[in-house]
Amino acid sequence: MLKGVAASPGIAIGKVFLYTKKFAEINTRNIDESMVKDEIAKFENALKLTKEQIEKIKEKTEREFGKDKAEIFEAHLMLANDPELYDSVISMIKNEYVTADNAVNHVIEQHASMMESLDDKYLKERAVDLRDVGSRIINNLLGIVNVNLSELDEDVIIIAKDLTPSDTATMKKDKVLGFATDVGGRTSHTAIMARSLEIPAVVGTGNVTQNVAGGEIAIVDGNEGIVIINPSDDILKEYEDKLNKYKIRIEKLKELKDLPAVTTDGKQSMLVANIGTPKDVEGALKNGAEGIGLFRTEFLYMNRNDFPSEEEQFEAYKYVAEKMNGKPVTIRTLDIGGDKKLPYLNMPDEMNPFLGYRAIRLCLDEKQMFKTQLRALLRASAYGNILIMYPMISSVVEVRKANAILNEVKEELDAKGIKYDKNIKVGIMVEIPSAAVTADILAKEVDFFSIGTNDLCQYTLAVDRMNERIKDYYKPFNPAILRLIKNVIDASHKEGIFTAMCGEMAGDPLTTVILLGLGLDEFSMSASSIPNIKNIIRNVSYEKAKEFTEMVLNMSTPDEIEDASRKILYDIIGE
Amino acid sequence: MLKGVAASPGIAIGKVFLYTKKFAEINTRNIDESMVKDEIAKFENALKLTKEQIEKIKEKTEREFGKDKAEIFEAHLMLANDPELYDSVISMIKNEYVTADNAVNHVIEQHASMMESLDDKYLKERAVDLRDVGSRIINNLLGIVNVNLSELDEDVIIIAKDLTPSDTATMKKDKVLGFATDVGGRTSHTAIMARSLEIPAVVGTGNVTQNVAGGEIAIVDGNEGIVIINPSDDILKEYEDKLNKYKIRIEKLKELKDLPAVTTDGKQSMLVANIGTPKDVEGALKNGAEGIGLFRTEFLYMNRNDFPSEEEQFEAYKYVAEKMNGKPVTIRTLDIGGDKKLPYLNMPDEMNPFLGYRAIRLCLDEKQMFKTQLRALLRASAYGNILIMYPMISSVVEVRKANAILNEVKEELDAKGIKYDKNIKVGIMVEIPSAAVTADILAKEVDFFSIGTNDLCQYTLAVDRMNERIKDYYKPFNPAILRLIKNVIDASHKEGIFTAMCGEMAGDPLTTVILLGLGLDEFSMSASSIPNIKNIIRNVSYEKAKEFTEMVLNMSTPDEIEDASRKILYDIIGE
Repeated sequence: MLKGVAASPGIAIGKVFLYTKKFAEINTRNIDESMVKDEIAKFENALKLTKEQIEKIKEKTEREFGKDKAEIFEAHLMLANDPELYDSVISMIKNEYVTADNAVNHVIEQHASMMESLDDKYLKERAVDLRDVGSRIINNLLGIVNVNLSELDEDVIIIAKDLTPSDTATMKKDKVLGFATDVGGRTSHTAIMARSLEIPAVVGTGNVTQNVAGGEIAIVDGNEGIVIINPSDDILKEYEDKLNKYKIRIEKLKELKDLPAVTTDGKQSMLVANIGTPKDVEGALKNGAEGIGLFRTEFLYMNRNDFPSEEEQFEAYKYVAEKMNGKPVTIRTLDIGGDKKLPYLNMPDEMNPFLGYRAIRLCLDEKQMFKTQLRALLRASAYGNILIMYPMISSVVEVRKANAILNEVKEELDAKGIKYDKNIKVGIMVEIPSAAVTADILAKEVDFFSIGTNDLCQYTLAVDRMNERIKDYYKPFNPAILRLIKNVIDASHKEGIFTAMCGEMAGDPLTTVILLGLGLDEFSMSASSIPNIKNIIRNVSYEKAKEFTEMVLNMSTPDEIEDASRKILYDIIGE
Repeated sequence: MLKGVAASPGIAIGKVFLYTKKFAEINTRNIDESMVKDEIAKFENALKLTKEQIEKIKEKTEREFGKDKAEIFEAHLMLANDPELYDSVISMIKNEYVTADNAVNHVIEQHASMMESLDDKYLKERAVDLRDVGSRIINNLLGIVNVNLSELDEDVIIIAKDLTPSDTATMKKDKVLGFATDVGGRTSHTAIMARSLEIPAVVGTGNVTQNVAGGEIAIVDGNEGIVIINPSDDILKEYEDKLNKYKIRIEKLKELKDLPAVTTDGKQSMLVANIGTPKDVEGALKNGAEGIGLFRTEFLYMNRNDFPSEEEQFEAYKYVAEKMNGKPVTIRTLDIGGDKKLPYLNMPDEMNPFLGYRAIRLCLDEKQMFKTQLRALLRASAYGNILIMYPMISSVVEVRKANAILNEVKEELDAKGIKYDKNIKVGIMVEIPSAAVTADILAKEVDFFSIGTNDLCQYTLAVDRMNERIKDYYKPFNPAILRLIKNVIDASHKEGIFTAMCGEMAGDPLTTVILLGLGLDEFSMSASSIPNIKNIIRNVSYEKAKEFTEMVLNMSTPDEIEDASRKILYDIIGE
């Protein structure tokens, strides 16, 4: 039995497929001048082949997983097309008389380690991509063909050191029961893909690959972060029971799809989905989302060399609005900056990017860019029920400035007779503590709130949630967070507007009863969490939720509140 | 007339001293093998001389400005003693047959630009220091002697491109009326030194050096950030009047030294000082501080290679406690991390250091280090009126953990019969929004609060205050900040404890009336601000302050509140 990081929930039982890659042995001998031409030709062929392979994978990924998941191969293509890398390799072959594979290996390593040495998360990730591209070129040069995950012919649990984007993209996914890897954390590529594919996964086990030869029976418990190789009959039986129960539960939850999220005493909440690309609408509808509570628009701006056009944006927004067929679609204006940068926008290096030049702060400066997005949003509003939401509001000043620009755009559309929803609702993310504290002031000038609990917790507790070292200080159950949420909801109701929540807290079963008790109107979460949260809401009374909430609001420490929440959740749904 | 950054307040009128440095011309010719030995000897002599010079400057600075200001020369000495630099220079002379000055120049530039290219503020600053040391070695090699600011024989205004730590340290400061420089911002070395010396200064003018030849009459208006060269008689007269008024005002303020900070209707506040080293106590007493509201202890830990001993700390705390002679001395436990790192502590590189592993979070992990400091603090408490204050508290959990360690230390002292103040007060910095929101919970477990407005604003508004790009979003007058302060003060009074404030807001004349109206008990600030704030308090009634505060608490935007504050300040003290 190995412990690792529970990366994607669920239980898988099946045969081990040990996925190892052949180690490319680089030819370090020198070549003589007569061979230079040949080596350059070999390199150019391998590079061409590499680009074709990446292009194919990209298309397959786009088809099967959607545009956002394919973006990483767009980045790979850009790296493969980088003239600087090309020139460096050619010049190294020419001037240093080394083999093409040696030159590629050297150049890629040099660039990748340079990127890694810099204190920039974005570049660090690019180093991983660069090595992925590099080993593909080298394998093509050396004629190494790795086991192909696209040719799996039976159901397996894949065990590997780590899985690269190329691996997961080519994988025949209907044959994969689960993943277990040596390395990685909750935000590693393997973990993210596993959750997106809804495949149970445990990552970061340290050495699971050294404990298997392939063909063993293994259990991957993605709920607890456990991998068991060659389980005893008792254990196997135990997990088969668990798996069955899990399946039955999932089936039962599916039955809730078209039922409302209503408490036993009749209080109804809206359960809506967070989406990152138009393609995600499918999953939202499949899981019974009553709308889109957060449509992130960053995908339109990232992994490209210039701003997206108004038309391109309009099409994306219209597509989602039409697919949702009258159900509300809350679209957040560009939230770039922080850890997300755009190569075509001059964005400063910052000491504390989370406390920096982000989102609405940037949009108010880049007025043309902002107007283009607002125009696309307004035009799309003629085709469905679109709501506009501004991120990173710290005071009413930004709301007024953003609305002034929105009004300019409306006037321009009016002048041209272009139709849009004249009653379009405009709201804000409440994710900066000052906004939560002054919700009463803000409520007078917006149509709705959506609480972004991830950032709100980060700022309120002064804890970067990506920082492993201080993860114990990231406590959504800190009484301050609950009080701020209460303050926001109460202030909104006093002004007759609604409050949604689109941070992780909204999809966390442990907080459902409290949020219900605080009177939250709309819960927005990953589509796959909706059935689970609905099940909780349908099994508790609003009276009980209010009583419970009043009780926990009198507690002093995050742990007391969390323990109480765990207990009431068990009382309600028995788990 | 030139505009620049108002770096240090006050007005100076006087003769220009243009401080330019001779440009060292590097000998780029190659040397022959026979000269290698000579060049190495020259380099070693120059290096020795350089170290002696730095050592002398360091001693002088320590004597005149205190230990913390001398730390930078400790860093210079470490650079001059770096064996890697030494080896690189020697090997370059030996292997490349270049002159010593050429080798030093090359090696220093290579290291400095490498440091600059990294995304690390600390290393960027070290690059400036390295160049300072490098040009000192080169000047010594080439026999260049620059005008020496230690030999000024008349009162002057120094105009320079920029001033290095070496410049300001050697300067004969009683002859310097003011500074004006081409480069620099409010946090540049020149600006910080000017404020510390209380010399009016304008930095970042762009090209003031190109507008003078030396000997002109110049006006430096450090209040408005203006430099005027060869003023007309009218302008000169105007500024002479301003300067006189300023002087009279300063003299008048000095008369307040021993008077209480009491409103016209008898409400008394405590005005206390923030200090960074024991030496600063002098300035605190000179300005009439009624105590020390914040004694930062980082100076004990920085610019050294190992932890400070208990004895060393004890002496520092005892010195201040005794000097303050029974007046309260609030000592903050180590607040390291964020942008301040210690070479002997394993501190992670962080993406958002302000939201990271800092202060109490680090101390609770480094228990031995923390216990040593607490033991020194408790022992020193036998010699005066010491209060202990924990920084970066986000919930009552950290208070309990820190107090448990404090109790361990007390028991150890009791067991050994070592005396300390058994009733020592223990309080917390309220600088994380969650602490401000849950002040009622925290008030039950501590003896006092001290609001750290700098961090509180940063987190509450999600704005890194060092980030120039978003400086318009850093608004201490945001209604959320005022509400949080009110919440903290009200909660403390309800539990019968007091609230101090030690952030910049406490020393800002614009906020004095509001803080008074909110019922703040203690204002802690740079000692030099005390007379000014006292003057405001002594000229307003508590009733009026409360009325005003109630009014601004109903305003929606930071600017409205700031404008109203400006107006009432003018009403009270006519400026």
